[in-house]
Amino acid sequence: MKNILIAFLLIFFSISLVSAQTDKHGDKTASEIRKVLETQTKAWNDGDIDGFMRGYWNSPGLVFVGGDNVTRGWQPTLDNYKKKYNSREKMGVLTFSGLQIDLLSKDSAVVLGSWSLAREKDNPHGKFTLIFRKFKDGWKIIHDHTS
Amino acid sequence: MKNILIAFLLIFFSISLVSAQTDKHGDKTASEIRKVLETQTKAWNDGDIDGFMRGYWNSPGLVFVGGDNVTRGWQPTLDNYKKKYNSREKMGVLTFSGLQIDLLSKDSAVVLGSWSLAREKDNPHGKFTLIFRKFKDGWKIIHDHTS
Repeated sequence: MKNILIAFLLIFFSISLVSAQTDKHGDKTASEIRKVLETQTKAWNDGDIDGFMRGYWNSPGLVFVGGDNVTRGWQPTLDNYKKKYNSREKMGVLTFSGLQIDLLSKDSAVVLGSWSLAREKDNPHGKFTLIFRKFKDGWKIIHDHTS
Repeated sequence: MKNILIAFLLIFFSISLVSAQTDKHGDKTASEIRKVLETQTKAWNDGDIDGFMRGYWNSPGLVFVGGDNVTRGWQPTLDNYKKKYNSREKMGVLTFSGLQIDLLSKDSAVVLGSWSLAREKDNPHGKFTLIFRKFKDGWKIIHDHTS
């Protein structure tokens, strides 16, 4: 009976340990991803689109979906941003909010959030779904669906 | 020298084997996910929204983003579909096309695709990003961003 109790306690302790580790891993990931997004908004609000683009996977495999348009590749995505937001007025002040970060695996995550641009004449806003992957140089967006 | 050659061949063979296994796993997953989407369009085109919804994770955790609206949970998502498409005319004929299926881990994947509704009076269409997870009863959409 005593042995069963010890075994039971050991199992319970092991599960708690694994669960704590998982939570810790999840918290760390979420904070790393938040950091990427904070760096992006800071760069945007400094008028630095190249800096903003460092949050994206620098690869022809990057997928950017905006409404009914799909852009493939980092360079075309950068080109589109630079064309669409060719002045500080058009860039406005970007805010991301309501972030929900869900881990899919140890090196992939999905982020749901809201974006908003405060501009002189209007206030465009919407939602985004971002797929992040962890690379050697950190978490990067590999797929962005913005609406 | 001979040993080095044998070691080299063994390494090469092992890598090929692992790579073939990975491809096989990827092919199997892609075909399972395609099957879910085919079952969904078939159900939709039979006027069966409940059947269509079986492709989604039946959980309050389901995320559905349509334009600027986020719906959380399987039941509210079903309710929205039933409200928006309350006749066969409104449902039209659904087609999914241009599917790109990327594995994120052994039990998660992201799917990019186009949707189109052929209806008497119009032809709404757009893009979707779907996050799939593998559950005991198969692959299910846990996050849908449609625009």
